[in-house]
Amino acid sequence: MRKIFVLRMGHRLHRDFRITTHCALVARAFGADGIIISGDKDDDIIKSVEKIKASWGGKFEARYDKNWKSSIKDWKKRGYVILTTMYGINLPDAEKIIKKDSAGKDILIVVGSEKMPSEIFHIADLNIAVTNQPHSEVAAIAMILDRIFAGMELKRNFRNAKMKIRPQEKGKRVVSV
Amino acid sequence: MRKIFVLRMGHRLHRDFRITTHCALVARAFGADGIIISGDKDDDIIKSVEKIKASWGGKFEARYDKNWKSSIKDWKKRGYVILTTMYGINLPDAEKIIKKDSAGKDILIVVGSEKMPSEIFHIADLNIAVTNQPHSEVAAIAMILDRIFAGMELKRNFRNAKMKIRPQEKGKRVVSV
Repeated sequence: MRKIFVLRMGHRLHRDFRITTHCALVARAFGADGIIISGDKDDDIIKSVEKIKASWGGKFEARYDKNWKSSIKDWKKRGYVILTTMYGINLPDAEKIIKKDSAGKDILIVVGSEKMPSEIFHIADLNIAVTNQPHSEVAAIAMILDRIFAGMELKRNFRNAKMKIRPQEKGKRVVSV
Repeated sequence: MRKIFVLRMGHRLHRDFRITTHCALVARAFGADGIIISGDKDDDIIKSVEKIKASWGGKFEARYDKNWKSSIKDWKKRGYVILTTMYGINLPDAEKIIKKDSAGKDILIVVGSEKMPSEIFHIADLNIAVTNQPHSEVAAIAMILDRIFAGMELKRNFRNAKMKIRPQEKGKRVVSV
Protein backbone atom coordinates (compact mmCIF):
# COMPACT_ATOMS: atom_id res chain seq x y z
CA MET A 1 0.00 0.00 0.00
CA ARG A 2 1.17 3.49 -0.73
CA LYS A 3 2.56 5.67 2.03
CA ILE A 4 1.40 9.20 2.80
CA PHE A 5 3.61 11.38 5.00
CA VAL A 6 3.51 15.00 6.13
CA LEU A 7 6.70 17.08 6.22
CA ARG A 8 6.56 19.97 8.70
CA MET A 9 9.28 22.48 7.76
CA GLY A 10 10.89 25.19 9.86
CA HIS A 11 9.74 23.96 13.28
CA ARG A 12 10.89 26.29 16.08
CA LEU A 13 11.43 25.04 19.64
CA HIS A 14 8.80 26.19 22.16
CA ARG A 15 7.15 28.72 19.82
CA ASP A 16 5.79 26.07 17.42
CA PHE A 17 5.31 23.23 19.89
CA ARG A 18 1.52 23.28 19.92
CA ILE A 19 0.95 24.00 16.23
CA THR A 20 3.41 21.28 15.17
CA THR A 21 1.81 18.86 17.66
CA HIS A 22 -1.60 19.65 16.15
CA CYS A 23 -0.14 19.02 12.67
CA ALA A 24 1.14 15.62 13.83
CA LEU A 25 -2.09 14.59 15.56
CA VAL A 26 -4.22 15.65 12.60
CA ALA A 27 -1.92 13.77 10.20
CA ARG A 28 -2.33 10.65 12.38
CA ALA A 29 -6.09 10.98 12.95
CA PHE A 30 -6.71 11.61 9.23
CA GLY A 31 -4.83 8.53 8.07
CA ALA A 32 -1.31 9.65 7.16
CA ASP A 33 1.44 7.11 7.90
CA GLY A 34 3.74 9.58 9.58
CA ILE A 35 5.22 13.04 9.99
CA ILE A 36 8.76 14.24 9.37
CA ILE A 37 9.66 17.32 11.41
CA SER A 38 12.37 19.66 10.11
CA GLY A 39 13.80 22.83 11.66
CA ASP A 40 14.76 22.76 15.35
CA LYS A 41 15.18 19.31 16.85
CA ASP A 42 12.39 18.76 19.38
CA ASP A 43 12.30 15.40 21.14
CA ASP A 44 9.27 16.42 23.20
CA ILE A 45 7.01 16.42 20.15
CA ILE A 46 8.16 12.97 19.07
CA LYS A 47 7.53 11.70 22.63
CA SER A 48 4.13 13.35 22.78
CA VAL A 49 3.03 11.68 19.52
CA GLU A 50 4.41 8.31 20.67
CA LYS A 51 2.36 8.62 23.85
CA ILE A 52 -0.84 9.25 21.88
CA LYS A 53 -0.07 6.26 19.68
CA ALA A 54 0.55 4.00 22.70
CA SER A 55 -2.94 4.80 24.02
CA TRP A 56 -4.98 5.25 20.87
CA GLY A 57 -3.31 2.78 18.51
CA GLY A 58 -2.18 2.71 14.91
CA LYS A 59 1.24 2.72 13.28
CA PHE A 60 1.85 6.43 12.89
CA GLU A 61 5.53 7.37 12.80
CA ALA A 62 6.99 10.72 13.90
CA ARG A 63 10.64 11.48 13.16
CA TYR A 64 13.07 14.35 12.85
CA ASP A 65 15.05 15.17 9.72
CA LYS A 66 17.34 18.20 9.80
CA ASN A 67 17.59 18.43 6.03
CA TRP A 68 14.18 19.08 4.46
CA LYS A 69 15.66 19.42 0.99
CA SER A 70 17.19 15.94 0.85
CA SER A 71 14.01 14.60 2.44
CA ILE A 72 11.88 16.07 -0.37
CA LYS A 73 14.33 14.90 -3.03
CA ASP A 74 14.19 11.34 -1.65
CA TRP A 75 10.40 11.38 -1.82
CA LYS A 76 10.42 12.77 -5.36
CA LYS A 77 12.31 9.69 -6.55
CA ARG A 78 9.43 7.39 -5.69
CA GLY A 79 6.48 9.61 -5.00
CA TYR A 80 4.50 12.77 -5.43
CA VAL A 81 5.24 15.94 -3.47
CA ILE A 82 2.50 18.45 -2.60
CA LEU A 83 3.33 21.83 -1.10
CA THR A 84 0.51 23.48 0.83
CA THR A 85 0.57 27.24 0.37
CA MET A 86 -2.14 29.87 0.05
CA TYR A 87 -0.65 30.80 -3.36
CA GLY A 88 -1.25 27.39 -4.96
CA ILE A 89 -4.07 25.80 -6.95
CA ASN A 90 -7.25 25.73 -4.87
CA LEU A 91 -8.19 22.30 -3.52
CA PRO A 92 -11.36 21.74 -5.61
CA ASP A 93 -9.23 22.07 -8.79
CA ALA A 94 -6.11 20.44 -7.30
CA GLU A 95 -8.08 17.35 -6.23
CA LYS A 96 -8.38 16.08 -9.82
CA ILE A 97 -4.71 16.79 -10.58
CA ILE A 98 -3.53 14.89 -7.47
CA LYS A 99 -5.76 11.93 -8.27
CA LYS A 100 -4.38 11.67 -11.81
CA ASP A 101 -0.70 12.47 -11.19
CA SER A 102 -0.17 10.64 -7.90
CA ALA A 103 -1.95 7.39 -8.84
CA GLY A 104 -0.14 4.46 -7.19
CA LYS A 105 2.61 6.73 -5.83
CA ASP A 106 3.63 7.61 -2.28
CA ILE A 107 2.63 11.16 -1.32
CA LEU A 108 4.49 13.75 0.74
CA ILE A 109 2.45 16.75 1.92
CA VAL A 110 4.75 19.63 2.84
CA VAL A 111 3.58 22.32 5.27
CA GLY A 112 5.69 25.26 6.30
CA SER A 113 5.95 27.89 8.94
CA GLU A 114 5.53 31.61 8.35
CA LYS A 115 8.61 32.11 6.16
CA MET A 116 9.23 29.51 3.48
CA PRO A 117 12.43 29.51 1.35
CA SER A 118 11.34 30.55 -2.16
CA GLU A 119 12.92 27.51 -3.87
CA ILE A 120 10.36 25.27 -2.15
CA PHE A 121 7.65 26.62 -4.47
CA HIS A 122 9.47 25.06 -7.43
CA ILE A 123 10.66 21.79 -5.89
CA ALA A 124 7.19 20.37 -5.20
CA ASP A 125 5.19 18.62 -7.94
CA LEU A 126 2.15 20.73 -7.13
CA ASN A 127 1.40 23.72 -4.92
CA ILE A 128 -2.01 23.42 -3.28
CA ALA A 129 -4.05 26.07 -1.53
CA VAL A 130 -7.06 25.41 0.63
CA THR A 131 -9.28 28.48 -0.10
CA ASN A 132 -6.43 30.85 -1.21
CA GLN A 133 -7.09 32.71 2.05
CA PRO A 134 -4.80 32.95 5.07
CA HIS A 135 -5.72 30.25 7.59
CA SER A 136 -3.84 27.29 9.09
CA GLU A 137 -1.51 24.48 8.10
CA VAL A 138 -3.37 22.30 10.62
CA ALA A 139 -6.64 22.67 8.71
CA ALA A 140 -4.84 22.32 5.36
CA ILE A 141 -3.48 18.88 6.34
CA ALA A 142 -6.96 17.73 7.40
CA MET A 143 -8.65 18.94 4.22
CA ILE A 144 -6.05 17.54 1.81
CA LEU A 145 -6.10 14.12 3.49
CA ASP A 146 -9.91 14.24 3.51
CA ARG A 147 -9.97 14.75 -0.27
CA ILE A 148 -7.27 12.12 -0.93
CA PHE A 149 -9.18 9.53 1.14
CA ALA A 150 -12.62 10.78 -0.01
CA GLY A 151 -13.96 11.01 3.55
CA MET A 152 -13.15 7.39 4.41
CA GLU A 153 -10.36 8.53 6.78
CA LEU A 154 -13.01 9.55 9.31
CA LYS A 155 -14.08 5.92 9.75
CA ARG A 156 -10.58 4.52 10.11
CA ASN A 157 -9.89 1.88 12.77
CA PHE A 158 -6.67 2.21 14.80
CA ARG A 159 -5.23 -1.18 15.68
CA ASN A 160 -3.66 -2.08 19.02
CA ALA A 161 -5.40 0.77 20.84
CA LYS A 162 -5.60 0.57 24.63
CA MET A 163 -8.56 2.97 24.69
CA LYS A 164 -11.46 3.56 22.36
CA ILE A 165 -14.32 6.04 22.42
CA ARG A 166 -17.94 4.96 22.23
CA PRO A 167 -19.49 7.99 20.50
CA GLN A 168 -22.21 9.74 22.57
CA GLU A 169 -24.74 12.41 21.64
CA LYS A 170 -24.08 13.93 25.06
CA GLY A 171 -21.41 12.95 27.58
CA LYS A 172 -18.17 10.94 27.53
CA ARG A 173 -17.62 7.21 27.23
CA VAL A 174 -14.16 5.72 26.92
CA VAL A 175 -13.58 1.96 27.08
CA SER A 176 -10.41 -0.02 27.64
CA VAL A 177 -9.73 -2.59 24.92
CA MET B 1 -29.45 34.16 5.51
CA ARG B 2 -28.61 32.07 8.53
CA LYS B 3 -25.54 32.91 10.61
CA ILE B 4 -22.82 30.47 11.57
CA PHE B 5 -20.46 31.43 14.39
CA VAL B 6 -17.66 29.65 16.24
CA LEU B 7 -17.34 29.97 20.03
CA ARG B 8 -13.80 29.42 21.28
CA MET B 9 -13.99 28.64 25.02
CA GLY B 10 -11.28 28.87 27.66
CA HIS B 11 -8.82 31.00 25.74
CA ARG B 12 -5.63 31.64 27.71
CA LEU B 13 -3.48 34.73 27.13
CA HIS B 14 -0.14 34.08 25.36
CA ARG B 15 -0.37 30.28 25.65
CA ASP B 16 -3.34 29.96 23.27
CA PHE B 17 -2.63 32.95 21.05
CA ARG B 18 -1.62 30.99 17.97
CA ILE B 19 -4.14 28.16 18.26
CA THR B 20 -7.03 30.59 18.84
CA THR B 21 -5.80 32.73 15.93
CA HIS B 22 -5.76 29.64 13.72
CA CYS B 23 -9.32 28.85 14.89
CA ALA B 24 -10.43 32.36 13.92
CA LEU B 25 -8.70 32.36 10.53
CA VAL B 26 -10.06 28.92 9.66
CA ALA B 27 -13.56 29.97 10.72
CA ARG B 28 -13.28 33.02 8.42
CA ALA B 29 -11.68 31.19 5.46
CA PHE B 30 -14.25 28.37 5.67
CA GLY B 31 -17.25 30.67 5.58
CA ALA B 32 -18.34 31.25 9.20
CA ASP B 33 -19.72 34.71 9.93
CA GLY B 34 -17.66 35.23 13.06
CA ILE B 35 -15.94 33.96 16.17
CA ILE B 36 -16.73 34.65 19.82
CA ILE B 37 -13.72 34.25 22.11
CA SER B 38 -14.28 33.37 25.75
CA GLY B 39 -11.76 32.89 28.58
CA ASP B 40 -9.00 35.49 28.98
CA LYS B 41 -9.64 38.81 27.24
CA ASP B 42 -7.15 39.17 24.41
CA ASP B 43 -7.38 42.31 22.25
CA ASP B 44 -4.39 41.26 20.15
CA ILE B 45 -6.34 38.39 18.60
CA ILE B 46 -9.26 40.62 17.70
CA LYS B 47 -6.82 43.12 16.12
CA SER B 48 -4.98 40.40 14.26
CA VAL B 49 -8.25 39.08 12.73
CA GLU B 50 -9.38 42.64 11.85
CA LYS B 51 -6.08 43.17 10.04
CA ILE B 52 -6.56 40.02 7.95
CA LYS B 53 -10.09 41.11 7.12
CA ALA B 54 -8.93 44.60 6.06
CA SER B 55 -6.54 43.04 3.53
CA TRP B 56 -8.38 39.92 2.40
CA GLY B 57 -12.01 41.06 2.59
CA GLY B 58 -15.28 39.66 3.82
CA LYS B 59 -17.48 40.51 6.78
CA PHE B 60 -16.07 38.18 9.43
CA GLU B 61 -16.60 39.40 12.98
CA ALA B 62 -14.35 38.59 15.97
CA ARG B 63 -15.50 39.55 19.45
CA TYR B 64 -14.91 38.73 23.10
CA ASP B 65 -17.57 37.45 25.49
CA LYS B 66 -16.55 36.67 29.05
CA ASN B 67 -19.59 34.53 29.75
CA TRP B 68 -19.66 31.48 27.47
CA LYS B 69 -22.74 30.06 29.20
CA SER B 70 -25.02 33.02 28.52
CA SER B 71 -23.59 33.19 25.01
CA ILE B 72 -24.59 29.56 24.34
CA LYS B 73 -28.02 30.07 25.94
CA ASP B 74 -28.64 33.09 23.70
CA TRP B 75 -27.80 31.03 20.63
CA LYS B 76 -30.01 28.15 21.75
CA LYS B 77 -33.03 30.45 21.68
CA ARG B 78 -32.77 30.96 17.95
CA GLY B 79 -30.32 28.39 16.71
CA TYR B 80 -28.56 25.08 16.89
CA VAL B 81 -25.50 24.50 19.09
CA ILE B 82 -22.81 21.97 18.19
CA LEU B 83 -20.06 21.04 20.63
CA THR B 84 -16.93 19.60 19.06
CA THR B 85 -15.40 16.93 21.26
CA MET B 86 -13.64 13.65 20.53
CA TYR B 87 -16.35 11.90 22.61
CA GLY B 88 -19.24 12.91 20.34
CA ILE B 89 -20.97 11.39 17.33
CA ASN B 90 -18.48 10.98 14.48
CA LEU B 91 -18.89 13.49 11.65
CA PRO B 92 -20.08 11.05 8.93
CA ASP B 93 -23.07 10.15 11.17
CA ALA B 94 -23.48 13.63 12.67
CA GLU B 95 -23.65 15.24 9.22
CA LYS B 96 -27.17 13.92 8.58
CA ILE B 97 -28.38 14.89 12.07
CA ILE B 98 -27.09 18.47 11.67
CA LYS B 99 -28.68 18.81 8.26
CA LYS B 100 -32.08 17.70 9.57
CA ASP B 101 -32.10 19.37 12.99
CA SER B 102 -30.48 22.70 12.09
CA ALA B 103 -32.44 23.38 8.88
CA GLY B 104 -33.06 27.12 8.59
CA LYS B 105 -31.49 27.83 11.99
CA ASP B 106 -28.39 29.77 12.98
CA ILE B 107 -25.53 27.49 14.07
CA LEU B 108 -22.98 27.92 16.85
CA ILE B 109 -19.96 25.60 16.75
CA VAL B 110 -18.32 25.42 20.19
CA VAL B 111 -14.65 24.45 20.49
CA GLY B 112 -12.84 24.17 23.79
CA SER B 113 -9.40 24.08 25.22
CA GLU B 114 -7.87 21.11 27.04
CA LYS B 115 -10.20 21.12 30.06
CA MET B 116 -13.90 21.61 29.37
CA PRO B 117 -16.47 22.06 32.18
CA SER B 118 -18.53 18.84 32.20
CA GLU B 119 -21.89 20.65 31.95
CA ILE B 120 -20.98 21.79 28.44
CA PHE B 121 -21.51 18.22 27.18
CA HIS B 122 -25.19 18.52 28.08
CA ILE B 123 -25.89 22.11 27.07
CA ALA B 124 -25.17 21.64 23.36
CA ASP B 125 -27.79 20.22 21.00
CA LEU B 126 -25.28 17.76 19.61
CA ASN B 127 -21.75 16.66 20.46
CA ILE B 128 -19.69 16.05 17.35
CA ALA B 129 -16.39 14.27 16.99
CA VAL B 130 -14.19 14.37 13.94
CA THR B 131 -12.65 10.83 13.90
CA ASN B 132 -13.07 10.12 17.68
CA GLN B 133 -9.28 10.41 17.89
CA PRO B 134 -7.27 13.14 19.61
CA HIS B 135 -6.34 15.82 17.11
CA SER B 136 -7.09 19.56 16.84
CA GLU B 137 -9.94 22.03 17.26
CA VAL B 138 -8.51 23.91 14.27
CA ALA B 139 -9.05 20.91 11.98
CA ALA B 140 -12.44 20.19 13.58
CA ILE B 141 -13.74 23.67 12.66
CA ALA B 142 -12.56 23.23 9.07
CA MET B 143 -14.13 19.80 8.66
CA ILE B 144 -17.48 20.68 10.22
CA LEU B 145 -17.84 23.82 8.09
CA ASP B 146 -16.79 21.81 5.04
CA ARG B 147 -19.61 19.33 5.64
CA ILE B 148 -22.18 22.04 6.43
CA PHE B 149 -21.32 23.92 3.22
CA ALA B 150 -20.74 20.70 1.21
CA GLY B 151 -17.36 21.86 -0.09
CA MET B 152 -18.70 25.13 -1.55
CA GLU B 153 -16.89 27.13 1.16
CA LEU B 154 -13.62 26.54 -0.68
CA LYS B 155 -14.82 28.61 -3.64
CA ARG B 156 -16.14 31.51 -1.60
CA ASN B 157 -15.49 35.06 -2.77
CA PHE B 158 -14.47 37.63 -0.12
CA ARG B 159 -15.86 41.07 -0.94
CA ASN B 160 -13.97 44.33 -0.46
CA ALA B 161 -10.57 42.61 -0.47
CA LYS B 162 -7.51 44.77 -1.09
CA MET B 163 -5.49 41.75 -2.19
CA LYS B 164 -6.35 38.57 -4.01
CA ILE B 165 -4.30 35.54 -4.97
CA ARG B 166 -4.09 34.28 -8.53
CA PRO B 167 -3.57 30.55 -7.95
CA GLN B 168 -0.29 29.18 -9.39
CA GLU B 169 0.96 25.62 -9.87
CA LYS B 170 4.38 26.90 -8.80
CA GLY B 171 5.27 30.32 -7.38
CA LYS B 172 3.36 33.26 -5.88
CA ARG B 173 1.05 35.80 -7.48
CA VAL B 174 -0.83 38.36 -5.45
CA VAL B 175 -2.76 41.19 -7.12
CA SER B 176 -4.14 44.41 -5.67
CA VAL B 177 -7.83 44.86 -6.30
